[in-house]
Amino acid sequence: MIIVTTSTLQVPIEICATFAFALSGLIAGARKRMDAFGVFVITGVAAFGGGTLRDVLLDRRPFFWVEHANWIWLMLFLCLFAMVFMRNRHIQLTERAIQLPDALGLGLYASLGTQIALELHLPVIICALMGVMTAVFGGVLRDIFCNEIPKAFNDHQPYAVIAFAGSLLVVTLNGLNFSQWICVFVPAGLISLLRILAIYLKWRLPSWQIESNR
Amino acid sequence: MIIVTTSTLQVPIEICATFAFALSGLIAGARKRMDAFGVFVITGVAAFGGGTLRDVLLDRRPFFWVEHANWIWLMLFLCLFAMVFMRNRHIQLTERAIQLPDALGLGLYASLGTQIALELHLPVIICALMGVMTAVFGGVLRDIFCNEIPKAFNDHQPYAVIAFAGSLLVVTLNGLNFSQWICVFVPAGLISLLRILAIYLKWRLPSWQIESNR
Amino acid sequence: MIIVTTSTLQVPIEICATFAFALSGLIAGARKRMDAFGVFVITGVAAFGGGTLRDVLLDRRPFFWVEHANWIWLMLFLCLFAMVFMRNRHIQLTERAIQLPDALGLGLYASLGTQIALELHLPVIICALMGVMTAVFGGVLRDIFCNEIPKAFNDHQPYAVIAFAGSLLVVTLNGLNFSQWICVFVPAGLISLLRILAIYLKWRLPSWQIESNR
Repeated sequence: MIIVTTSTLQVPIEICATFAFALSGLIAGARKRMDAFGVFVITGVAAFGGGTLRDVLLDRRPFFWVEHANWIWLMLFLCLFAMVFMRNRHIQLTERAIQLPDALGLGLYASLGTQIALELHLPVIICALMGVMTAVFGGVLRDIFCNEIPKAFNDHQPYAVIAFAGSLLVVTLNGLNFSQWICVFVPAGLISLLRILAIYLKWRLPSWQIESNR
Repeated sequence: MIIVTTSTLQVPIEICATFAFALSGLIAGARKRMDAFGVFVITGVAAFGGGTLRDVLLDRRPFFWVEHANWIWLMLFLCLFAMVFMRNRHIQLTERAIQLPDALGLGLYASLGTQIALELHLPVIICALMGVMTAVFGGVLRDIFCNEIPKAFNDHQPYAVIAFAGSLLVVTLNGLNFSQWICVFVPAGLISLLRILAIYLKWRLPSWQIESNR
Repeated sequence: MIIVTTSTLQVPIEICATFAFALSGLIAGARKRMDAFGVFVITGVAAFGGGTLRDVLLDRRPFFWVEHANWIWLMLFLCLFAMVFMRNRHIQLTERAIQLPDALGLGLYASLGTQIALELHLPVIICALMGVMTAVFGGVLRDIFCNEIPKAFNDHQPYAVIAFAGSLLVVTLNGLNFSQWICVFVPAGLISLLRILAIYLKWRLPSWQIESNR
């Protein structure tokens, strides 16, 4: 099995994905009219929460945001800038505009998280779970901090499910001895593509057959 | 002090308890009409959250669900099966039906968690806390993910309190040099029994003397 | 760089701060009329949550509350005592009365958390973040467990912001080779003073320019 070296791929990938996820946190904080500290925490949690949880569970150190601490300064200025200049119409614009980088981030984070777990020789399902967790848990923590049921859990759009399928593909490609670039970027691209299709074709996950009794 | 070996006891115990707690998560997710991913996460968090938090705090690896990854596949199919076949009346049936395995799980998880902490020679109160945490925090995280105040915190039923008393008994029995089986299973049985009595005799924890001003 | 030894300073500092934060958790639990277990957990999380999260992220063991486990017994009796004797007027009294120790705790925890991270030679911004996290995250977790948006995120009072400024001062003083006592206690005092001024002069953080659309 050819293993992707963390140093080569991790940095550029995480930067792209981080930015999209940070913006989603920024918007969530703005929506709740949080103060500067709240916005900063929500932004940071959305951007780094998934990868940090993965690294805590896998006992990996240092965290991405510790190793690349300058990004935190950038995030801090981004938040302050947004608080001064962002208006309602910007929120709507930004929400639509981040769908593309968010889809890219979903693919890249899921593939990368899976690959990192594969390096540790964990079971297939755990590797796929780590990929999904990396991609999705930043948003989950963002919503919990905003006191809402995580959108990924009940908006019935295919999001984590696509990341899960892609993560299984990463495992498969590694098993077939493809090169590291193929193992990471082909599934990442497929996940991003499927996610964008899911948005534009309005795919829906199947619903429960039960009636809500609340 | 005779120490229970993790390998002998942990697996069968955690399987029983895990299943009951997983079902409680499944029902909570169904109640909130979450989508497939949400139900899966809530189920997994309810089943493995307490033990995972304990292991993160005690810096133990690998986690139970990493070592026995096949259970995750089983859980995945359980969730999908439930989404297709579960109806309202099943939820009510299941809620009543899981009270017994949940009580068993409470006892077994609390005793096992305490015993694991004892192996690490931690102070008495920490061992008891680890037992309670193992048994109760899956449910706490399940409720936080569902955006509710954890039921264990404000339903005024004796649940964690019973687990705490039982955990102290585990410590006491270890101190008296009883065999490992007695140290784990006698308190586990007592906790389960007390919990079932608490349900059927409708025991209540004492309330605050204050008026609610919200 | 002269490094403060953890053993000298950590214990008395954490005891002061812990008590104030524990009281804030106790009051939050009482407000929600939680049962004995809920109050105990909220109290513990408010008191130890920030330091524990810092130690998990920095991979430090043992936790303060594991090393000084007797404090947990004390906390347990405090909670039981409060449930029996606390009345509405006590809550109001206590809330006002803990503003001073809470301000002291904010300063001491933030300075200490920063100093601990400096010992590990982490980047400046990470050290400051660890200080803020130590001081603020107990309260954040307390509010999440109570199913509310964390007060530190949206009450628009300067709290974390003051801790952040003080944490940066800790880093600066360390860089200027001041003695360990000055590095920790001068910023701690300044943070506490500013926090008390912020309360009495009703300082407010700037608000968003956007309209709330919820």
